[in-house]
Amino acid sequence: MQHPNQIFLLSEHRDTYETLLAEKNLPDLAITNKPQDAQIVLADPPLLSQRLDEFSQLEWVQSTFAGVNALMVPNLRRDYVLTNVRGIFGPLIAEYVIGYSIAHFRHFMQYHQQQQSKQWQPHLYTSLQSKTMVILGTGSIGSHLGKTAQLMGMKAIGVNRTGIPTSGGEFNQTFHINELASAFHQADIVVNTLPSTPETQRLLNSEVLSHLNQALLFNVGRGDVIDDAGLLLALKNRWVEHAFLDVFEQEPLSPQHPFWKLPQVTITPHIAALSFPEQVIDIFADNYLSWRDGFSLTNQVDFDKGY
Amino acid sequence: MQHPNQIFLLSEHRDTYETLLAEKNLPDLAITNKPQDAQIVLADPPLLSQRLDEFSQLEWVQSTFAGVNALMVPNLRRDYVLTNVRGIFGPLIAEYVIGYSIAHFRHFMQYHQQQQSKQWQPHLYTSLQSKTMVILGTGSIGSHLGKTAQLMGMKAIGVNRTGIPTSGGEFNQTFHINELASAFHQADIVVNTLPSTPETQRLLNSEVLSHLNQALLFNVGRGDVIDDAGLLLALKNRWVEHAFLDVFEQEPLSPQHPFWKLPQVTITPHIAALSFPEQVIDIFADNYLSWRDGFSLTNQVDFDKGY
Repeated sequence: MQHPNQIFLLSEHRDTYETLLAEKNLPDLAITNKPQDAQIVLADPPLLSQRLDEFSQLEWVQSTFAGVNALMVPNLRRDYVLTNVRGIFGPLIAEYVIGYSIAHFRHFMQYHQQQQSKQWQPHLYTSLQSKTMVILGTGSIGSHLGKTAQLMGMKAIGVNRTGIPTSGGEFNQTFHINELASAFHQADIVVNTLPSTPETQRLLNSEVLSHLNQALLFNVGRGDVIDDAGLLLALKNRWVEHAFLDVFEQEPLSPQHPFWKLPQVTITPHIAALSFPEQVIDIFADNYLSWRDGFSLTNQVDFDKGY
Repeated sequence: MQHPNQIFLLSEHRDTYETLLAEKNLPDLAITNKPQDAQIVLADPPLLSQRLDEFSQLEWVQSTFAGVNALMVPNLRRDYVLTNVRGIFGPLIAEYVIGYSIAHFRHFMQYHQQQQSKQWQPHLYTSLQSKTMVILGTGSIGSHLGKTAQLMGMKAIGVNRTGIPTSGGEFNQTFHINELASAFHQADIVVNTLPSTPETQRLLNSEVLSHLNQALLFNVGRGDVIDDAGLLLALKNRWVEHAFLDVFEQEPLSPQHPFWKLPQVTITPHIAALSFPEQVIDIFADNYLSWRDGFSLTNQVDFDKGY
């Protein structure tokens, strides 16, 4: 092949991606180390945002993350097609939410502590069955979670910008985002899966959270969807009984942040869903074949919407 | 009603049962405090086993537990119909197994410890998806668990005394108990749901466990199905990576028992499934109406089989 398409790899896991890409043996595709030669970039968005201008022939960026905020910053170029990874996080997010919910309601931490002192002491508990989970965002992650919640015997309520139910029956009920208070009145568990957009920033503030009553709150979307001061008040007033936070406005979370010390807050370092490189490369490979043949790409990001 | 049927309540939660029974308002049924007047006893088996001979008119015992071992002891009378509670534990057991499995694979305990020292450190993990769960016992608990495992993306293998698959497709594969070694070679997670019978006692000994490779082992069946010395060896050799034990031959577990101190063992005080009195009374009420009208009862225990 005289003029293969050239791809530049820009990721913390560059070596893994190089190996996986070689195994795919995609037609007319060569890896280049020269940014100016690449039409295609496979990239972690935070790394690419620093170097976007080096790619003079850039046509298409495949993000290795779902979150592409780093590339939405004003004044960054937008003269390329951006695709992200979707649809592979649903099961991982569902495990995180279901696992921590069970651990909470079934006192896993308490039994662990009792074991240290050889204490045999049962505690009453409630099952997930017949609890209600309110899920903000009815995209692929929210939908997978809604389905899983139903399979565990829960009622799943979806909240989105239209109030229109998804077609797959993943939710027992769907609310418009303007009806968030009504949804929250029913909630035993709330899960935010929303991306960061001007509309979602600080959406979960003290006023909104005051409609909860001893609910569990999960944030697996974006950190700035939560107003930290509002959440602190919600914890104090027990509108929120426990918060499970995987994403933060600033990551890593600053050692000064009050969340670290609160027993009603569980902090995890952005691991609710990881992009497993194998799955990213599968998505890339499908898209590459479409791109090469002039077809449109899947998982395309709309720069105006920001996702 | 001149001669109502008389029921004696013998349970740690006697008051709760009395209230719930009154709410049911069952026809021709009165609660008695005189054992000799009762045709029916609603009882926790360990309490009843001490007093069985006091009930001279006994016709039917409704156990509040699934486990009726206490009434299977040799020399205890068997001249009555014994029914237990079934079918209500599946979801609770499934939550226990799925919850602890996720907590293990997703490092919940490690993140908890890191939070104490404000440490932001992600760890690689594997998902439940595409793991294999081997379930000993394909009754209502095992079947519910098999179905749940499949819904979480796992392969579910059932093991029973016939090797015949259940009709509901709850298992991807079913093995005869004599093929336990073959099943164990595939296992990422093993769950024992078997009752205690002469055939199951010490079934999980060192020879059998040696066919595992870094598996998680759950015991939510009966304590004596596990040979403790065999499990200690299996943990030492990492045939079993972690054991989650909810039932023990002697309960509470003796403070001298080595399991307490092992970090690879999680001990819970027989709480994987509780009999919620509301559900027990629902089962009793259905059975009572059958009994009153001379029909056969559901959930009848076979004294010869022991379950």
